[in-house]
Amino acid sequence: MKFDEELAEVDINPLIVSRDGAVAADARFILSSQDSDQPAPAPVPDAPNDGLSVIDRYTPLFQPKSIAVVGASTTGVTMANTFIRRMKAYGYPGNIYPIHPKADEVEGLKAYPSLTDTPDPIDYAYIAIGAKRIPELLASANGRVKFAQVLSSGFGEIEEGKALEQELVKSARQGGCRVIGPNCLGMYSPRGRVTFPVNPPEEVGSVGIISQSGGLGTDIIKRGQWRGVRFSGVVTMGNSADLGPSDLLEYYFADPQTKVVGLYLEGVKDGRRLFELLNSKAATKPVVILKGGRSAQGNAAAASHTGALAGDQRAWEALCKQTCCSMVSSVDEFIDTLLTFQNTTLRPERPTRQVVLFGNGGGTGVLATDSFAELGLNIDPFAAETRTALEALELPPGTSVANPIDAPVGTLQEENGWIAGKILDRVYDTSNPDAIVMHLNLASFVGRGDKDPVDNLIKVAEHVQTTHPGRAHFLLVLRSDGSQELDDIKRKYRQQALAVGIPVYDEVTNAAQALSVVQAMEVRFAARQR
Amino acid sequence: MKFDEELAEVDINPLIVSRDGAVAADARFILSSQDSDQPAPAPVPDAPNDGLSVIDRYTPLFQPKSIAVVGASTTGVTMANTFIRRMKAYGYPGNIYPIHPKADEVEGLKAYPSLTDTPDPIDYAYIAIGAKRIPELLASANGRVKFAQVLSSGFGEIEEGKALEQELVKSARQGGCRVIGPNCLGMYSPRGRVTFPVNPPEEVGSVGIISQSGGLGTDIIKRGQWRGVRFSGVVTMGNSADLGPSDLLEYYFADPQTKVVGLYLEGVKDGRRLFELLNSKAATKPVVILKGGRSAQGNAAAASHTGALAGDQRAWEALCKQTCCSMVSSVDEFIDTLLTFQNTTLRPERPTRQVVLFGNGGGTGVLATDSFAELGLNIDPFAAETRTALEALELPPGTSVANPIDAPVGTLQEENGWIAGKILDRVYDTSNPDAIVMHLNLASFVGRGDKDPVDNLIKVAEHVQTTHPGRAHFLLVLRSDGSQELDDIKRKYRQQALAVGIPVYDEVTNAAQALSVVQAMEVRFAARQR
Repeated sequence: MKFDEELAEVDINPLIVSRDGAVAADARFILSSQDSDQPAPAPVPDAPNDGLSVIDRYTPLFQPKSIAVVGASTTGVTMANTFIRRMKAYGYPGNIYPIHPKADEVEGLKAYPSLTDTPDPIDYAYIAIGAKRIPELLASANGRVKFAQVLSSGFGEIEEGKALEQELVKSARQGGCRVIGPNCLGMYSPRGRVTFPVNPPEEVGSVGIISQSGGLGTDIIKRGQWRGVRFSGVVTMGNSADLGPSDLLEYYFADPQTKVVGLYLEGVKDGRRLFELLNSKAATKPVVILKGGRSAQGNAAAASHTGALAGDQRAWEALCKQTCCSMVSSVDEFIDTLLTFQNTTLRPERPTRQVVLFGNGGGTGVLATDSFAELGLNIDPFAAETRTALEALELPPGTSVANPIDAPVGTLQEENGWIAGKILDRVYDTSNPDAIVMHLNLASFVGRGDKDPVDNLIKVAEHVQTTHPGRAHFLLVLRSDGSQELDDIKRKYRQQALAVGIPVYDEVTNAAQALSVVQAMEVRFAARQR
Repeated sequence: MKFDEELAEVDINPLIVSRDGAVAADARFILSSQDSDQPAPAPVPDAPNDGLSVIDRYTPLFQPKSIAVVGASTTGVTMANTFIRRMKAYGYPGNIYPIHPKADEVEGLKAYPSLTDTPDPIDYAYIAIGAKRIPELLASANGRVKFAQVLSSGFGEIEEGKALEQELVKSARQGGCRVIGPNCLGMYSPRGRVTFPVNPPEEVGSVGIISQSGGLGTDIIKRGQWRGVRFSGVVTMGNSADLGPSDLLEYYFADPQTKVVGLYLEGVKDGRRLFELLNSKAATKPVVILKGGRSAQGNAAAASHTGALAGDQRAWEALCKQTCCSMVSSVDEFIDTLLTFQNTTLRPERPTRQVVLFGNGGGTGVLATDSFAELGLNIDPFAAETRTALEALELPPGTSVANPIDAPVGTLQEENGWIAGKILDRVYDTSNPDAIVMHLNLASFVGRGDKDPVDNLIKVAEHVQTTHPGRAHFLLVLRSDGSQELDDIKRKYRQQALAVGIPVYDEVTNAAQALSVVQAMEVRFAARQR
């Protein structure tokens, strides 16, 4: 079956969920808002077409020249005060205008009584005041605010706030601005020096994130930071009352800085648009979806979290199967997968299947081989030629060169670690693996004399990538036992490996999971190219 | 169907694998050694019946009065030297006799030329010399050695060593001792002050381990140590040429110190005996199996690791389904599951199903609800009575009391954390959960004023266990972002929680996995009691 034919078979209706956000007993059967028992809500007008390219439309969001902050206090420390402090600390170069009904100065900055009183128009307004006061505020923006991110909760995620959420969007239309949120935490854009979490990564990266949860947005930035993920942007969207995940996804697809997109979704109101976008010519980048509300119970939890109706899990799975998406089920898996795409050049012409596993720990190798096999990745014993080439190295007893290559610490200490380069060179010279996974149990290297070869083993990993370019994906697993000592050592070596572009994982199972997503994406991009 | 009838239906034949250890194309069809294409090996005589109870038989292993060490050097530092040093450091109270052909003294201890020259008979001999020299050594033991653990490799895990492994067992029969190993790393018995890893836990615990991999044995001890698992014993068995997992399992079942048994298995030669033991009246304790060689590829890897034939995965799954076993697939899952059984009183009369989830992070709650649901555990919204009782607490806006209970840090800081006690008391007073999972995202508590309620939140966890005894399993999840700062904080609070008997997990998904194993075990023990 050709790809286009497959597409025609997908039933995307289940993705189109009720706009009123009511939790139906069985969300599968809600095809559109018309099918709901609830009266259809009064329509909110579409935003007028601004005639801009998607890049031009969102550049003021990701690189705002001026920012208004509504909700900062002269006496206490609110979220808005904290935002101003973090923006200053992160070196935001533009103008920050606190909006305050009375004060002349907030957080050491000149304050203005309303959004229309600022010296310049506002690219991005950060709004964290009581929910009920926000519609009026936005209605009076008078076309001077491009994007208003509403952090406040009390909208569509609770029954009593559903009407207020509609009013919010209508008022925004009236005032001429687009809303991000409500019920979110902010955005992070290193190229615009905008941040909501404290001390995020300095560098502009290639991973674009859209998160319907603010807290998970923070988790994604901070966990990503320590594991080496660098972002082109992170936008938390909460209830997604006006702008939604599809809008930002369209931007990230067009944005040359973004190489991979990650979405945390609880539910989308425009399932058809999302699907068509993921299936369009613009969809040339891998998309990783972390989906909340996969089960009926999770669906109910999502409804009270962001007012979302999560839709039928099978529809999401169908979507992922047919497009450039992969679905994961935990934040850690999400981070590992994003890291992998960030540091990997996909190879649709030769999808990953054959893996060489190399490291210390025989039992670990056996368990790892199972994990890879269960995910459709083969750690097959080497052919005779490779085996002979490796046996000629006359490695110490206890070393097994069958694939998995089980090399005890004594072996890895030979030539102060450079032995690993010889082993891998022979693997490359006599075989053609799609990926190499090197795993090091750091505990084994402690207290084994004054030779710690891990430093050189990472150099070897860099070396094989340079001398055999484009041959095999290379993944490094650094295993700690959870003690402070080994966790610190792991952190050090992780940074060292990341600095030369090698992705690092905590366990072999995580690397297997990440590589299986790479495989799936290579297969799908290959199908699209046909 | 009654339990006995179910048993009759299990096909345990696939567990009976070829004794010669050759890898067949399809291990499923090897029913016994007679079915193999290989000529039947010369039989090794069974060990004579010593007439002892299983406790009396293995007490000398777990609490040896005297130990012989073969392989320590007067000049270099071998594994055997390291063993002696670690035994001294760990405070072994008995006699250590180094065996050395020439030296008078090794590691500061008087040495003896042979196993028959020591002042007392030997309860436990640690043997780490060249493989070929070992059969002769054991043949000459003259009934003076009870257990000989052979660390050396070069036996059944390689083609050229298969005959040597048979000779090893025959020689041991001749010399009157039982062999543990070969191709392993040693044993750890805190009640006997015996250890092979450095600085293991001091305390005698309740988790008994049998591992066919030495390296994984170390991993299990050290990872377990930092996560709060305490052991009644850890025996690494490598190729299991003579004594096998079933022998030690029989001991752990009888041992009053042991509450739960963990096995890392690659393959067993006496599948029928293992099955009958797991199905006997003695099997009153949960058994957790980490199985290497679940896939064809992993099977091949296991063959070169310990010479094991792993057998058909379906037979292992059938075994687990019918007995008091649970199968896990990674070391981390193994540790988490053991920790859970160590700290949990199983409740077969009311198997775990209804879970209350409580903590900070709305998106985390949604994802967690999915994970629990996918494992057959329900996080169902509260009934009206509970909801009303919780709403009466008038918690700050942003708190959701639907189950999952989503309480932002601002809420958890109320009454310096004691608010959590009020919330949980009302949950207990108005509902009847089978388990409560509390999750704390530690990142959210940092830099949020000088009130850090985590300390009190752990006291609350202890309090609810005391005031509502036997009501619900209680699991705590402490989430770090992987930064040094938060990892250190997590380590501190983990110890605090473990000290009052509360098991701690890294992620909500890990707690879900652990609780699902508890559920499965409760269901099975309930079936056996019928």
